[in-house]
Amino acid sequence: MKKSMLAFAALSLVSGIAAAQSSVTVFGVLDVGARSLKGVSSIKYLHKDGVSSSRLGFRGVEDLGGGLKAGFHIEGALGSDDGSGGTWQRRSTVSLMGGFGEVRLGHQKVAARTIVDDFDAFGTTGIADVSRLYTLTGTSRDWEINRTSNQVSYFLPSMGGIYGNVDASAGEGTNAANKMISGRIGFKSGGLHLSAATGNQGVSAKLKTTTLAGSYAFGSATVYAMHTQNKQAGMATNKINSLGLAYSMGAGKLQGSFAKATGGSKLIAAGYDYSLSKRTGIYAQVARTDNSAGKRFGLGGASGATAPAAGGDSTGYSVGVRHSF
Amino acid sequence: MKKSMLAFAALSLVSGIAAAQSSVTVFGVLDVGARSLKGVSSIKYLHKDGVSSSRLGFRGVEDLGGGLKAGFHIEGALGSDDGSGGTWQRRSTVSLMGGFGEVRLGHQKVAARTIVDDFDAFGTTGIADVSRLYTLTGTSRDWEINRTSNQVSYFLPSMGGIYGNVDASAGEGTNAANKMISGRIGFKSGGLHLSAATGNQGVSAKLKTTTLAGSYAFGSATVYAMHTQNKQAGMATNKINSLGLAYSMGAGKLQGSFAKATGGSKLIAAGYDYSLSKRTGIYAQVARTDNSAGKRFGLGGASGATAPAAGGDSTGYSVGVRHSF
Amino acid sequence: MKKSMLAFAALSLVSGIAAAQSSVTVFGVLDVGARSLKGVSSIKYLHKDGVSSSRLGFRGVEDLGGGLKAGFHIEGALGSDDGSGGTWQRRSTVSLMGGFGEVRLGHQKVAARTIVDDFDAFGTTGIADVSRLYTLTGTSRDWEINRTSNQVSYFLPSMGGIYGNVDASAGEGTNAANKMISGRIGFKSGGLHLSAATGNQGVSAKLKTTTLAGSYAFGSATVYAMHTQNKQAGMATNKINSLGLAYSMGAGKLQGSFAKATGGSKLIAAGYDYSLSKRTGIYAQVARTDNSAGKRFGLGGASGATAPAAGGDSTGYSVGVRHSF
Repeated sequence: MKKSMLAFAALSLVSGIAAAQSSVTVFGVLDVGARSLKGVSSIKYLHKDGVSSSRLGFRGVEDLGGGLKAGFHIEGALGSDDGSGGTWQRRSTVSLMGGFGEVRLGHQKVAARTIVDDFDAFGTTGIADVSRLYTLTGTSRDWEINRTSNQVSYFLPSMGGIYGNVDASAGEGTNAANKMISGRIGFKSGGLHLSAATGNQGVSAKLKTTTLAGSYAFGSATVYAMHTQNKQAGMATNKINSLGLAYSMGAGKLQGSFAKATGGSKLIAAGYDYSLSKRTGIYAQVARTDNSAGKRFGLGGASGATAPAAGGDSTGYSVGVRHSF
Repeated sequence: MKKSMLAFAALSLVSGIAAAQSSVTVFGVLDVGARSLKGVSSIKYLHKDGVSSSRLGFRGVEDLGGGLKAGFHIEGALGSDDGSGGTWQRRSTVSLMGGFGEVRLGHQKVAARTIVDDFDAFGTTGIADVSRLYTLTGTSRDWEINRTSNQVSYFLPSMGGIYGNVDASAGEGTNAANKMISGRIGFKSGGLHLSAATGNQGVSAKLKTTTLAGSYAFGSATVYAMHTQNKQAGMATNKINSLGLAYSMGAGKLQGSFAKATGGSKLIAAGYDYSLSKRTGIYAQVARTDNSAGKRFGLGGASGATAPAAGGDSTGYSVGVRHSF
Repeated sequence: MKKSMLAFAALSLVSGIAAAQSSVTVFGVLDVGARSLKGVSSIKYLHKDGVSSSRLGFRGVEDLGGGLKAGFHIEGALGSDDGSGGTWQRRSTVSLMGGFGEVRLGHQKVAARTIVDDFDAFGTTGIADVSRLYTLTGTSRDWEINRTSNQVSYFLPSMGGIYGNVDASAGEGTNAANKMISGRIGFKSGGLHLSAATGNQGVSAKLKTTTLAGSYAFGSATVYAMHTQNKQAGMATNKINSLGLAYSMGAGKLQGSFAKATGGSKLIAAGYDYSLSKRTGIYAQVARTDNSAGKRFGLGGASGATAPAAGGDSTGYSVGVRHSF
């Protein structure tokens, strides 16, 4: 996602308008590769989004003067393997920013989800995605506090290393299931990064999630630790603990993670990403889930047939190329 | 919708190709806010398109030499509150322009609609949209001469202050309901702006609309007056008269409008828009419909439940932010 | 499809980043016109894609150093007559390129189809599209080795005038019908261009297509010849032979083609394209199919009613404007 800053210089040269008022950035990611998934049955296929989510977007920031800025960000998923796409449902927001922080309106990820992205060594993307262990039933993907529409967010201004935001989505009458409130606070200093977040979604079947996480970078290594509790009325709470590691060696990066859910189901993953440039890289990953009795946490993918049997295992391999622009 | 003129200077610098042959403009609007609507029941929600329609588009003009130009314009709606989008059905046209005027082919608004946009003090957008009074039944939104596909348009060249265009859409066999013809003529001089337009759409249930409108700008104020007749065989004709006002005070603009339909149903609206820059502003609006016996003209919105009872009222409040790029 | 090279100079001026790492090209085509089609019944309508497929796309190439490059290309169909669009299913690929050639992953046309595009004088677009004769039944368009998802392609590096590529799409479990393998080889030198391609798609009802083609350019003229065999188990093989001609006269280009399928059905077409600039042109075309007993090869279009009766004829006329950016 290298900024492209289209028109930036262009406009200022041609029309004399201040550059800061004219930037539109076109950006995107294409991530495609080959994957093997094995559960009850196995499949080999060309996949997208091995280590980063394929996307196309436009964004910009306008300096309003007096320390105030306005910004927009629209971003949609891109089926790099099949050409699907069309909506802007990864993010569609408009922001006012200033000394007071940022007020952001629209459709985007909620605080209770961004923390999981940040402290999973694999960024909740691809076969190693730690959120595969986050469902309550271990069968379907019911842990779905992810993105919401009609969201009002407030982000704290930069204060030392402290950051934070609160997000709220209105139920909008008949869509009470979409009612959501979430918040996150964090602290970054030197190599240390700590954060906590919580979120509630829905009305009658309210889903609650809470996460505490930390990471520490020293030298070429970063270690991650995260604890999440997911609850829904009438269902057993799922507590997930995960550890992760990223280790840089020149242009290469080794990654590993281990996670365990209530009942003992485990996800273990390892990966290697090699950067050919700032924008392009190749990668290989392997991941495996081992389920406790009755659970069917799988590595996802193209077909339900690759989900493990109850109490069974699933294994995945992935190699691919990522390119951002 | 500030022009971005991507590539304009860029190309001429890099490749030596004439700048006029290389412009592609990425443009758009995000308009999001909070709205309250009350009819039979009430709803509060995050809305899009409070004072301007959220969109994403690309356009450009090529100088062909000898006074001839070619141009394209593609523009699609953007769900700034929920990320929806994907098509280019606000406008998708290609044009040839010269001393003879402009021939434009594709999908766009028809003449009978653009006049209503231009002489509604609120631009037929948001809760104050005068076209809420334009339906024939006062229940559903049956006044739908708006955009058509397969359209051939001819625009007069600039002639003193006179402008005009005619649009025609073929029925294309089984889609005879889409057959449309529309025309508009206008005159602009000093602060005076006069225009008239008419349009016919459909075959068996042909809808006819005719509008006469004028505006006058003096000092910081502009006043608007418009008369429209909407007819369909077998239904009572709806004649709508509206008055509007826009008054600029520095970066702020006060707006007001009053409209009355056949039978006595009324729409009254007031708004304030404050520009933070040429591209960004904040706004607040209030609007109300009072219906005559049997009519249910409402302020629209997210849910049918906010429509008024027959002969009843509806009220709306809206605050938001608009950002164009 | 003139390259726009957005941001190219812009970025290097503003941020000092190497230009080659920053190019994003926005490109597209709008092609709209009026068409008449006559089969069993007739229709007149505004059409898109008379001589070139309307589209919107983004592409770029990144220099990775050491002779290695990465590139992306996303491109979607654009309904220039009705504003439809949204996906990127004309092409969505990411590539690594170097002295070894190019490895390309994603969704795109297969080799067995690109050869037909290249040696049809009308580029398999519009009423003169030679592939109208390519179906096996002469009724529906069952010859559909065109684009596939989940494709891995390898393109030979530039070697004298020899080029070639192989494409393979995985079946991905339940989608075995999508399993595809295709290859093409060619030679270009002076005015001579020779190519051969073959492709297999599907599992139980496997479709096989093989094409041999050549063209020769001398002075202002280019002549084309192509032979294709399309086979599917249980159906009669369709062998199609076509001849084409393109003749340039200043900014104008005359085109003609004649094709004959197994059984004797014929397609004959003539066209004239006049370039107003490198990016913009106007065109007129006429085409006709004459069917052998039982066949219904038609010129396509908006409605099935324009297909010919069994053994009958269809005729089409088209005029329009094309504009690329």
